This record gives sequence, C-alpha cells and structure tokens, in this order.
Amino acid sequence: MIVSEGVVMLEYQDPNKTIGERVNDLLRRMTLQEKMGQINQRLYGWECFTFDQATKEVRLTNNFLDHLDWGRGVGAIYGLFRADPWSRIDYSTGVGLKDAWRVANCVQREVIAHSRFGIPALLTEECPHGHQGLDGVSYPTNIGKGNSFDPELVERSAQLMAKELAVKGINLALVSSLDLAKDPRWGRTEECFGEDPYLSEQMSRAIVRGFQGDLIDHTIPLTTQFAAERRFDQIGVVLKHCIAQGEAQGGHNSGTVILGNREFRDIYVPLISGAQNAAGVMAAYNDIDGVPCHINPELFRQILREENNYQGLVMADGLALDRLDDVFDNKVNSANAALQAGVDIGLWDETYSHVAAGIKAGVIDERLLDEAVGHVLAIKFRLGLFEHPYLSDPTDQIDQIIQESQKCNERLAEESVTLIKNDGILPLDKLTKNIAVIGPSADKLYNLLGDYTAPQTKDMKMHTIFREIKAALPQSRVTYALGCDVRDKNNQSKNLKEAINVAQNADVIILVLGGSSARSFDMEFLKNGAVSSKGINMDSGENVDVSELTLGGAQLILLEKLVQLKKPIITIMIQGRPYDIRAVLKKTNAVFIGWFPGQMGARALTKLILGQSEPSGRLSISYPRNSAQLPVYYYQRAASKQDDYYDEAGAPLLTFGSGIGYTSFKYRSLHVDREKNRLRVTVTVENIGLRDGILPLLVFAQARGGQVLSHHCLLKAFQRVSLHSKERQTISLNISMDNLKLTNLEQKQELPNTVKIIVGDLISIVSL
Amino acid sequence: MIVSEGVVMLEYQDPNKTIGERVNDLLRRMTLQEKMGQINQRLYGWECFTFDQATKEVRLTNNFLDHLDWGRGVGAIYGLFRADPWSRIDYSTGVGLKDAWRVANCVQREVIAHSRFGIPALLTEECPHGHQGLDGVSYPTNIGKGNSFDPELVERSAQLMAKELAVKGINLALVSSLDLAKDPRWGRTEECFGEDPYLSEQMSRAIVRGFQGDLIDHTIPLTTQFAAERRFDQIGVVLKHCIAQGEAQGGHNSGTVILGNREFRDIYVPLISGAQNAAGVMAAYNDIDGVPCHINPELFRQILREENNYQGLVMADGLALDRLDDVFDNKVNSANAALQAGVDIGLWDETYSHVAAGIKAGVIDERLLDEAVGHVLAIKFRLGLFEHPYLSDPTDQIDQIIQESQKCNERLAEESVTLIKNDGILPLDKLTKNIAVIGPSADKLYNLLGDYTAPQTKDMKMHTIFREIKAALPQSRVTYALGCDVRDKNNQSKNLKEAINVAQNADVIILVLGGSSARSFDMEFLKNGAVSSKGINMDSGENVDVSELTLGGAQLILLEKLVQLKKPIITIMIQGRPYDIRAVLKKTNAVFIGWFPGQMGARALTKLILGQSEPSGRLSISYPRNSAQLPVYYYQRAASKQDDYYDEAGAPLLTFGSGIGYTSFKYRSLHVDREKNRLRVTVTVENIGLRDGILPLLVFAQARGGQVLSHHCLLKAFQRVSLHSKERQTISLNISMDNLKLTNLEQKQELPNTVKIIVGDLISIVSL
Repeated sequence: MIVSEGVVMLEYQDPNKTIGERVNDLLRRMTLQEKMGQINQRLYGWECFTFDQATKEVRLTNNFLDHLDWGRGVGAIYGLFRADPWSRIDYSTGVGLKDAWRVANCVQREVIAHSRFGIPALLTEECPHGHQGLDGVSYPTNIGKGNSFDPELVERSAQLMAKELAVKGINLALVSSLDLAKDPRWGRTEECFGEDPYLSEQMSRAIVRGFQGDLIDHTIPLTTQFAAERRFDQIGVVLKHCIAQGEAQGGHNSGTVILGNREFRDIYVPLISGAQNAAGVMAAYNDIDGVPCHINPELFRQILREENNYQGLVMADGLALDRLDDVFDNKVNSANAALQAGVDIGLWDETYSHVAAGIKAGVIDERLLDEAVGHVLAIKFRLGLFEHPYLSDPTDQIDQIIQESQKCNERLAEESVTLIKNDGILPLDKLTKNIAVIGPSADKLYNLLGDYTAPQTKDMKMHTIFREIKAALPQSRVTYALGCDVRDKNNQSKNLKEAINVAQNADVIILVLGGSSARSFDMEFLKNGAVSSKGINMDSGENVDVSELTLGGAQLILLEKLVQLKKPIITIMIQGRPYDIRAVLKKTNAVFIGWFPGQMGARALTKLILGQSEPSGRLSISYPRNSAQLPVYYYQRAASKQDDYYDEAGAPLLTFGSGIGYTSFKYRSLHVDREKNRLRVTVTVENIGLRDGILPLLVFAQARGGQVLSHHCLLKAFQRVSLHSKERQTISLNISMDNLKLTNLEQKQELPNTVKIIVGDLISIVSL
Repeated sequence: MIVSEGVVMLEYQDPNKTIGERVNDLLRRMTLQEKMGQINQRLYGWECFTFDQATKEVRLTNNFLDHLDWGRGVGAIYGLFRADPWSRIDYSTGVGLKDAWRVANCVQREVIAHSRFGIPALLTEECPHGHQGLDGVSYPTNIGKGNSFDPELVERSAQLMAKELAVKGINLALVSSLDLAKDPRWGRTEECFGEDPYLSEQMSRAIVRGFQGDLIDHTIPLTTQFAAERRFDQIGVVLKHCIAQGEAQGGHNSGTVILGNREFRDIYVPLISGAQNAAGVMAAYNDIDGVPCHINPELFRQILREENNYQGLVMADGLALDRLDDVFDNKVNSANAALQAGVDIGLWDETYSHVAAGIKAGVIDERLLDEAVGHVLAIKFRLGLFEHPYLSDPTDQIDQIIQESQKCNERLAEESVTLIKNDGILPLDKLTKNIAVIGPSADKLYNLLGDYTAPQTKDMKMHTIFREIKAALPQSRVTYALGCDVRDKNNQSKNLKEAINVAQNADVIILVLGGSSARSFDMEFLKNGAVSSKGINMDSGENVDVSELTLGGAQLILLEKLVQLKKPIITIMIQGRPYDIRAVLKKTNAVFIGWFPGQMGARALTKLILGQSEPSGRLSISYPRNSAQLPVYYYQRAASKQDDYYDEAGAPLLTFGSGIGYTSFKYRSLHVDREKNRLRVTVTVENIGLRDGILPLLVFAQARGGQVLSHHCLLKAFQRVSLHSKERQTISLNISMDNLKLTNLEQKQELPNTVKIIVGDLISIVSL
C-alpha cells in the first residue's frame, strides 16, 4: 500500500510503478471471474446504449449491464459507434462525431463502476480506411493506397484518423494491413495494400507509427515502461489479419490455405514484423497447412512475440474461436488451444466464456489466463486509461481535424489512382464544351467508398465524380447518365438509351465502370457482419467473393454502345478488385484504375483528369486478364515451366508496378554497394518529358542460393521521387541484409550467394 | 575368380552370387568413365539405328557408337521404338512389333561389346497407356482408368503390356501413375488416375504387380537376392512422376508448387508408398515449396528409400537436370545436388556428363556416383539381363498377346466410361432406325487415344465411334457428320450445315464432343518432346495447358443447332480433362464422360449405349463448372468458410464418385469394427433396379484430431461389387490404422481421436 499526497494508493494504481509491476499487482488481486471479464469482448457495442439526440441523454441497455455484472467489468467493447446496414445504425439512430464522447464517457463510467479495481474498457472500432462510424472520414481503401507507394502519407492519414477516433473516446482501431491480395476473386481484396509483402510491411509500420506514435517500442520492454503521459490522439492499433488470409484456396473468404514453410518464412514472416510495435494484432480466420491461426503457437508465441519482440495483445477475429468447433469436440478444448497459442481476447464468441470452467476442470492452466489478462491490462495501462478514462468536450477541435483529414484524404486519393492508358487525350482540355459522365458509379458517392463504410451525410453524397467534374468545369456542359447498374439489369434498355442520348451530344465521354462494395439496409448479414444476401446490386467486400472477374450487369454492353459512337472515352474503373478490363483497355482512349478512392476520390480524379495533379500511382498487384489464369502474382518462384496457356497468355494483363503519368522517366547507371549490414542501391532517374512528374521508384531483388528456386523477384525498397521536367536525380536506397535472407533446403534462413538487383530496365548482380 | 563348368567366371558374372555381391564386385573393377556411362541416358533411341524393312537389316548410327565409346557402354537407352510426330517415326520409318526384337538384340550386342564387363543396357520406353510404339496396344488413358476403380483389371492390362514390351526386348516401361489431377487446366490431367491419392496408390501398386510380378519385394533386400530366373514378360516399371506435379500453380506444366508439409505428408507420402516395389521412379519437374524434386533428398532418400524400403533406381525427367540451372550457377553443382538427393540416372541432360569432372575437382564424392551406378546395375542384375540379354524370335506369341490385350483393353474401356445423365433414352433401342453420329471425334480414332500415342494402322483407324455403332446396328441407317473441329473453325458453316442435314433425318443423335491430344507430324516440339506449336487442332496433353475449360472451336454452336432440332441427343465427351459441360448436361438427354477410351473405346461405348454392357465408371475427379471456381478437389480441409461465390456455386458440377448405371443401388446398415491394426467396415448393398449392375463401393473417412482441421474426407477403401437385380450383398473392407494417421500440429503422424466413416448416405463415427 502506497500513500501518495495523502491518498491511499494500491500498487497497480500508482503511475510511478512500471507497467509490469502494476499488471502483476492487479492480477494478484483479481478473482477468476474478474479475469474472465478481461479476455471477453462479446458485446456488439451499438447495442449497449441508446442516445437521445435532443436531450443528449445516454441510456445503457440491460444486456450491457448484465454483461458487466458477469465479468465484473469488461476487457473490451467492440463497435460502440459502428454504423452500417449490419448494425442498422444510421443518422436517425446513431451518434455522430460531436456526441460520441458523451457515450464513451458514460460507458467507461459504468465499466469502471462494475470493476472492484476500476479497470476501464478498451473501446475498439473498425477503421480499415477510416472509422466505420457516422461522420467518419472515409479514405481510399487499401488496394488503392498500396498504389501510392507512399507510407509517409499513409502515416499522416493514420495520425489524422487517430485524432478523429480520439475525439470519440476510442482506444483501439482495427485496421487491415496484413492481408495480401493473392486472388482477386476474394471479396476482401480491397482491404489489402496489394500482393506485395514488403509494401504491406512498410504500410503496416506507417499505420502503427501514425496511430500510436511512440506508444510501444519493441526494443523497450513494455513491462519496464510507465503509463504514457497519454497524448490525446495516441490510439492503439490492432492490425489484421495474422496471417495469410489472402491465400485461401479458390479465393473463398476464410478458406483453407496450403502454404509451405519456406513460402511462409520468405513472404509472411517479414510481413509480420511490420506489426512488431502494434498494440494488437487480430488472428486470421484461416488455417495454414491445416492449423487454424487461432491455435497456432508458432505464429503468435514464436514468430510474433519471440522473434519480433511483440508486446501487444492478440485478438481473435469475430466468432473465429467458435469456428474451432471444426477442430475440437468442445469449447473448453478450443479455448485451451487458443490460449496456448497466445490469443488473448475473444470477439463475440462463446468459446472464451468457457475458460473458467476449463480451469476448474483442470483442463486449462490458469497461468495461461493470467498471461492473456496481463496483455490486455498492459495495453490499458500503457494507453493511460487508468489515469485518464474520460474525455472532456472536444467540440472545438473537430472542425480542424476534419479539414486536415479531408485534405490528406484528397492527396491520398490522388496517389491511389493509377493511370494505365492514355492515347494523348489526357490531361483533358479544360475548354472541352460537352462532357458526358456515364456509368453505374458516376454519380454514387457510396460506390466510391468500399466495404466497412458508414452511412453518409447528404452533403457528403454530393462528392460524386459527375458533380466534381461539373463543379470544376463551370464553362462546360457536363451531363450524366447511369447507363447501367453494377450488377442489376433492371430498366436496362431504358438506362442504355438514356446513356446513348447523353453521350451523343458529348465531345468526350467519361465512363465510370467497375464493381461496388456498397451495402444497403435491406441486405442480410451473418453473425460476424459479413454479407449473406445474394443478387444485390454490389459485388465485393467481405464474403462477396466472385468466380468470374467479368464486369457485372450490362456494363460491357454499355461500353460497346458508347464505343460505337466513336467519341473519345476516358474510363475510370471504380472497383475493390481487378475486373477483366481487356475490352475497356482496347476500346477506350484512356483508363484510370481508380479503386475505391474514398470521399475525396471524385475530386482527386477530377484534378488528375484535368492535369491539375500528376498521376503517380503504380499497381500494387499483378492485374490478371480473368479468373482462368490465376494466380498471377509476380513473385512466384522462377521455375522453367510452360508459361503460356494454349488459349491465353500466362502473364497478367498488367505487371506489378504498372502505371503511367503525364511525363516519362528514364533510369540510368545503377550501382550496388555491399556495405556491412546492407546493400546500398544507387540509381539516377531522369524526367525526360515536358511536365513535372512523380515516380515511385521500385527496387526488386532476385536472390539465388540455398538449393532452392528463387522467387522471380521481390520488392526490397521503394521511394517516391518528384522530378521537374528534364530534372535528373540520383537516389540511394538501402536494403538490409536481413531483408535478403532466404529459407534454404534445410529450412534455415541464410543469405543468398548472389542477388540480382533490378530497377526498371537496369540490372546489377552482386555476390554476397 | 570363380571357375564354373570349366569357364573362368568373375564374381559379378556368377548368378549364384547375390546381387549385392555382384554389384560390389563390378563397381570395384569399373573406371570412372565406365561408371559415367551407367548413369547416362542421353540417347534418343530412335536415332540410334536405321532398319531396312525389306532386308530386316539393322544399321547402328555413328552417334550411337560414339556414345558407347564415350561411356564404355551405356546405362540406359530411351525410346528405341518410340514412334510419334516428335520422333518423326511412323510406319514408313519405324519398326513394328514383329521386328523390334532384331533391333533390340543388335543394340544390346553393340552395348555389351563396348563394355569391358559385358554390361547390357536398360531399354526404356514410354508406356503411359500402352507402348508408344508402332503396333502398340493403346489402352484408355489414366484419367479414364481411374473411373473404373478396378486395380485388378489395371493389373491385368499391365501384365499384357509387359508381354507386349517383352516381345520388343524392352526392359523398363515408363508409366504415369503418381500424378494427381488437381487442376484441370493442366494438359497432363489425362495421365492421372484422378485427384485421389489412395486410388492412385492402389493403381500404382497394381501396375507394379502387373508389369513386374515378384521382381522386387520391399520386404526382401534386393542385395540379398539373385538374378531372377527371368520370366520373359517381367518388365521393370518406372513410375512417374515423383511427386506433386499436378499441384503446379495455375495448372502450368512443371510449374512451381506451394505445398505445406502436412498436406504433403497426408496426401503425397501415402501415394509414394505405391511405388515401393517399383524398379524405378521418375523425379518430377516441379519444386515443392521451393526445392526442386530432383535435388530433394527428403523425397528420395528419406521417404522413398528409408520409409518405404524402396530398392529401385531414381530416374531424372527429360532434361530436368539441366533445368537445375534455375538454381545453380554450374552443372557440376547441379549434378552434385541431384546425386546427393538420390537421382541415379539422367535423361537426355548434359548435367550428369559433368559428374566425372566434379569428382576430379573434388566437388562430388565418388561414393555418390558408386551408389547411383549400383542402383542401375542392381536392376540390370535382377532383370537377369546379364544372363539373358538377347531375345529369340517371338513371332509365334504375338497374335495371342495382342488378342488378349485388346480383349482386356475393351473391358477396361467399358469400365473407364462414366455415365452422368440418362433421362431414360439409354440403353438405346436396337430397333432405332436412323442414327446420326456427329462431332469432331465421332469418326477419328486418333482422337480417342490421348497423348503419348504412336501412329495407327489403317485397320486400327476404323475403330471409330461412328463405325462401331454402324457395325453393331446393321439394320439401322447410321450416318455421320463432322459438325466442327475440336479447335479449328475452318469450313465452319459448311460443317454445321452438313451436320444439321444429317441430324434432321435422324431419330437419335449421338453427339461426340470434347478435346483432343492428337499430335500430328506438322507440329513443333520442345527438346523434351512436349508440344510447342500453337493454334493446332488439339488442346491437351503435355505442355498443352488451357486457361478456359470452355469447349473449343464451334462445338457449342453445333450443340445449340442440334438442340434446336428437338431430337433426342446422346452426348459422349471424348476428352483428357474436364471441359465445361454445363450446356451439354442441361440440353441433351444422356451424357457419357468417355475420356480418351483407347483403341477399343468406340466398341466399348457402343456396347454401353446399346446396353450390352453396364455403365460402371465413377468420376475419379471432382468435375468443375469452369476454370473460375478452381480448385474443387473433394479433400480440401473442412474449414468454416464462404463456400459459394456471389456469382456461382462453390461446389463442383459433379462430385468425386459421381456416375450412374442402368440400375440403382441402395446402401444399408453400415458397421465399423475396430480391430487391432485396422477398421473393418461392413455394409450391405442392394441392387434395387431391374437390371444387373456393377457398383464401385467407395468408403471415405474424415479424421478428427491432432489440433488440425481435417480434410473433408478421404477415400480409404473401395471395391467393385456386381449385383444381380434385387440382389443384396454384405461387403467388408479393411482400413489399416496406418492409413488413418494424420499429421498433427507438431508435424508428427498420429492416429486421430475419432474417425467418421462415410459410405454413400450412411455415416458411422468411431473413436480410436
């Protein structure tokens, strides 16, 4: 017992004690049931309260209070502010940015009141591309952000998301960054930064830095640290998913993964290191070679904690622990295996509520529970939640945060778009008189946003491609037609006719095709929030895997009809996965891959079209022709094989890194110096065109050695370079030796004998 | 030195010495260069000689003699009698069944004369579905034979192939049996018995028994045995390929394989055991998780030799050792790695000619070479080649062998065909007046044979589907039209018109669609014999991988035109891989999957159509809808996942084991008894229809335990059951406990906790 300033203070309450000391003290005091409360995250947050928008009164639900009674408090609460068709929360029922703090405070107060030790809850929220809550700033989805090759800007966006979440009282943001887009049939392709592990690792690190600042440093034991003088905008981030979910056979969501250990070590283990400073990682639904990630001790204990000094918590995915019924005959065994693997806290599942019974029955070792609780508590201590569980009214700050965020959002959208064809029509002449903007996503803001997106305000819904172009060209006549739906074929002939009418009077057509992850309130969902409806007018996002990559609905007919008019066509692909764009590429004059570019995406696209900004995105996936040639990711092992099919090329339609701008670049004189712990790659880049431009410079390596077939090549370094017209710059990038190791015949990591360094059309071979 | 019957005999020459003693003695005497000769198989056999059909004179080529000089003899000679478009050998240039022995004797005499020790050569020939030589009996390809679930009949056919090869003086038959058909895009799908490892293991064992008899028994050390009193028809078999070639990503021939160790252990290691008595296995082109099979010591030394007491030789695939340039910087290192892995003899490659240089340079340990030579010599001793290298004129036996073979061939074809739809039109009424037989493979014998097939005689070419039906129904008017080509669209409208004319006058249409592996003499080939031509009128076989499974050419148009006539249509799919048959299945009245049914296939199909035999085949693959839903093999791990795509079902079109006959069966009262080392599965089957019938009874198991996701289920036992109408039989099948083990979390083999046994619609759960 400590007496500080006259107040009796228990050891765990003392901010001058280390986190290790405080956790141990608290654990010693807690009952089994109190510990149970800390590893459970069963609540659906939006069901915990009601909010009266007139009186600002928060009412807590009985369900919530009962749960607090059960666990004597609670470990974490998911999605207090989640708003979407699944939660059925919209502006009529939900809580916006200005009032969220009231709810957060009320909830925390109740949680703390239920705990003998005043343990606050971790409030967790989905934030895959901005908070999935009302008034959330919705950034481009990851598949686009990957095209930017700009971790600095992603870090900046994460800082701003953290500020926005902080205003709402959120403590942990769930952010996708660890999945790789290996099979475009997968509906969650949009959540991946692309197919490349190094890019995704760098983006993961950027996200952690942006959200967390210096919250956790893997080189400093968290247990020796103290509660942070908590900066209001330091939010813990839970990176998802760990790991290899994008490898699921057939692109089936959470399907089984066959992956050899060398491939796992060479591709996924480096990527996992991107999470080493994160406050949390979420386990992936899938198994790897038969072992579900949720019961894989090598993954969490060995690779994450031992090899990477990871100090955060490991969170289960939604209901994933209950899916262990696939492996075990009862939930005690499931819980035991998950605890042994190092999963600290559940999500909505029943399984972790069986832990106490398992301990009492002698099946589960209570030390496993203590360890899990310790990880949860350590994060709470480090976030300063014990000292500062409540927010004061943040209203003053909100406008500036949102302004800064949307500015960043627009820049990110600009960089997330990749131009893949331009016959000279772009940048579009600002004096163009008649412009027809046509297509299923031409005037629908919600289609630009991707999955995990909250309902939008009326004002926000005005930020469509059609309206932004119209606004940017007040002298022009800008007209709009739907043309067709993304998938539906309702009113098809009427829609086509309208589109042709509109197009016939145009000098240029801007055609907006693609897919959509837009959810609506009349759809059905699984218990984990994934779509279960069929035949709705959208075709991507979680659980919406497709077999064919063909454009849906009447899009190809629309394209054909417009092409027949022989007008110039600029196509924008709004999509969360690659669709088959062979016809688009062949028949239209310019093509942007716009992905889901977010709330400011339409504005960014408008500026790119008009040449007010420079296209600088490069594809972070190998873009396939169609499903029949999958997989096509660029870093398959370089075997002598039959590369082409009899009926089709084996190579993808567009290689990883493809993309053009409004100027051209040339690479000159590649040098590679072998220094002690790294290679130093030096190359000169010249802007040989007439416009200033930006080039993501990509450095690939092919490693030979270890009695294994090397991967074709792997991205090892990258940097965005801005060059004025005719400017030349010499750039040096480092590749650490550790980043060149390969897994050899004996399953050991070793340096290769030689490395081929590839930058553009230049190659240098280095012996190590 | 031994004196026997007055002749001075060296130890290796003494048939009373064990093979081990003889090999050791010989090795002691051989020079480095003589050993080099034994591990090389660089010759293309058909280039070693010319044969004058008038004088029966054999002339040996200088190239051949030079090679014998180089190696002081030779280890093996590939393809003396190979005849096909690649070798450019046909009836005008090649040697048929009656004269082959003359060539074999002449070649052996020269080989022996070049060797100080009189070491004969192993004469090896391709025999994937019969000998790929002139007059070879061409059986159904494996993908069909797998449908028979009849290893006894496959064994019988192997016995007959052995007799046929023996007549030609061949010593080793190269036979596909270890590849699994996991991706139908792969052009070699036809060479697989299907997707199932247990079925393929049983078929492998049947083939080894059939060809070899008791030549090698893994329970008796070969080194302790003696030269066989060599039965004239005991031929060594080289099973190919070892292993997992069918897993290549994207279905690209010899492409890279990502396979986890558990999947490898659970699926492929049991399959490898099927080769344990074989005289040889051929290494597969592919890598597994980065390690090329040709340099994988775990595969050949540990799994094959140690775990399975394998005593044969390991042969490289054609030029595969040279492909190790993908891994190593020079061929000495490649050769060293391959020898270390246990590859004993090359095929066409340059690499193994560098072994001597490697030994002289101190890179390669000569003991590795001795070991390889020892394996080659042991097989030669065991085959009795030292004692009986020459044949006497076998002419008297030939007719009977061929007669027996073709009888077996016809039965095998009957069993290889699977009926998947019958609306009642089958069996076809023999009184049907007008029958139109239409389609690209309706009157082309060569299309029925598959890849690795020799030119056919004029007589044999008459065994087409059209002609066999015509012959079987002398009272009917049977007419023919091509309709369209397999891939070409030449004369399309003319062909379609003809087909419609023919069909319009018919009471029933027999429509023969599908693909073709037929090679022609105007095609181009790679150095390993695989096709390199494009756009030829065929679409499967080695190196002919396709992306889309859509039927080629105008076949779908032909189908549509014929359907419009509203006549009954019986469709026969002649194909080496599954094509997309959704339209066929929906729109025609009965559908046979005929695969490539061989020379007697047309006759077998005719009998099946007329009900003169009973359809008893069952699909040994999961038949996909199209490429976009791959993979669909039935034993994927049973994860809770999104099974269906948004735009298509996830399940295959037809499940593994699908197929119907002209009667129906019912399963009753499944019992499973746990005995000491096995499960005894007892089930009653009843023929509830009005015709006698045959049912392949398939027993599946799903094993739970080991902290791993189980496979959906795996085939563990099967048996063909013949039942008269209304007959009931109680069948017992055994499953050994070893065959139930699974690879657990710790990568150890262990028995599962429980096993679910599945027979038809019956299930029994057993605790182990």
